[in-house]
Amino acid sequence: MKPIRGVLLDLSGVLYVGDAPLAGALEALTRLQASGLPVRYITNTTRSPRREIHRMLSTMGFRIPEQEIFTAPGAVRAALERDGLKPLLLIHPGLAPEFQDLVTDTPDAVVLGDAGEAFSYDNLNRAFRLLMDGAPLLAMGSNRYFREQDGLSLDIGPFLRALEYAAGVQGTVLGKPSAEFFHAAVADMGLEPDEVLMVGDDAEADVQGALDADIQACLVRTGKYRPGDEDHIDTHRARIADDLAALVADLLA
Amino acid sequence: MKPIRGVLLDLSGVLYVGDAPLAGALEALTRLQASGLPVRYITNTTRSPRREIHRMLSTMGFRIPEQEIFTAPGAVRAALERDGLKPLLLIHPGLAPEFQDLVTDTPDAVVLGDAGEAFSYDNLNRAFRLLMDGAPLLAMGSNRYFREQDGLSLDIGPFLRALEYAAGVQGTVLGKPSAEFFHAAVADMGLEPDEVLMVGDDAEADVQGALDADIQACLVRTGKYRPGDEDHIDTHRARIADDLAALVADLLA
Repeated sequence: MKPIRGVLLDLSGVLYVGDAPLAGALEALTRLQASGLPVRYITNTTRSPRREIHRMLSTMGFRIPEQEIFTAPGAVRAALERDGLKPLLLIHPGLAPEFQDLVTDTPDAVVLGDAGEAFSYDNLNRAFRLLMDGAPLLAMGSNRYFREQDGLSLDIGPFLRALEYAAGVQGTVLGKPSAEFFHAAVADMGLEPDEVLMVGDDAEADVQGALDADIQACLVRTGKYRPGDEDHIDTHRARIADDLAALVADLLA
Repeated sequence: MKPIRGVLLDLSGVLYVGDAPLAGALEALTRLQASGLPVRYITNTTRSPRREIHRMLSTMGFRIPEQEIFTAPGAVRAALERDGLKPLLLIHPGLAPEFQDLVTDTPDAVVLGDAGEAFSYDNLNRAFRLLMDGAPLLAMGSNRYFREQDGLSLDIGPFLRALEYAAGVQGTVLGKPSAEFFHAAVADMGLEPDEVLMVGDDAEADVQGALDADIQACLVRTGKYRPGDEDHIDTHRARIADDLAALVADLLA
């Protein structure tokens, strides 16, 4: 493998959980930033506009330039604007401001985010009928689930699969594990994919997704990690670290 | 092909639509029953207990012994009883009486029916968490959608796919097109699958499902049939008839 010349970091589950930094994460990130290796932040977080994410990271003590954060909703918005599409939004209410100016009474595209309670039968049916009329399906990710305080909850992926199966169509995923999404962040560092290391707690979207995009990858045992997740990744190609602090120590050794 | 010694009939779309018999269906069924060929009725209808279906058929003028009707909910109930399982029910409210006595506060199996509005995020999440704890997933069908008065609506299949993807499990479909379900009705006539003809209006669940279970099959151009449905079936192996009356005339000629 090539020497690592840049790092992509997932946010939730790698730097913090809930609204608290993970043990050692603040110091580890400071050390990584001080090493001179460029860093970009790549998140499927689908409940807040980028500005909010940046504000929350700052409140927790992370010093990160806002423009270094790549979000899945931002990638979806760029695709809608490029193709002149009007979205039917199945997204988290916190994200509504990011799309408000694109909404009309006659949508011609379905946008799937982390809609939670808004994944009602009626809303899913409305999306399904639009897809049957030929509308494209754009998703902010295809994760299976995420961890909430009271347990695991369904993420975008299951609803994407449901609508794809119902309408007999193939959606476009514009968050991780989309190679296009990873490569935009890699290109922003002026590097090639194979000289960059992606660090995440999601064996599929972060680690396998990065490997499939020719990016090196490391699974951290924090956040949504569960014992056995290693079985889903190619351990000959991916690293595994207990947490970001352990990885950074190893990387800078 | 072997001579036909028994017949399996789908109900909705073959004998009736809504609450009215199809043209010629009452006479055709009487003729078929009088021929001496045994008949069984096999339905994925997931909104009513068998008793209700029988009552509705009687009201329309069909004379059918209740015990000759095989329903997907009945097959699910039999599987729960066989394995001593307590269901978390995602089913149509009209079907609740069929399972009421099996419900407890500590379910250990997920049952998917045609839940409509009850396919809420909370209910799907509850089912997902139970699956992650190892509960089996039983479905009354895997159809993609059905036709309602105001358009197409999502059926069980998309939600089955969603939960299978989320939890990384494989559900068991106990309605059509499950071979086990077809074979239970065939065995009840004391026949072998290849000497029985399945008649239905659904090219996938009825016709292809029967063929895959080594049963002969006939698609009727009534009910949910749409021009082009023939393209989804193996026309070298399946018959096609305009309706039940035409098929019975042909069969008894």
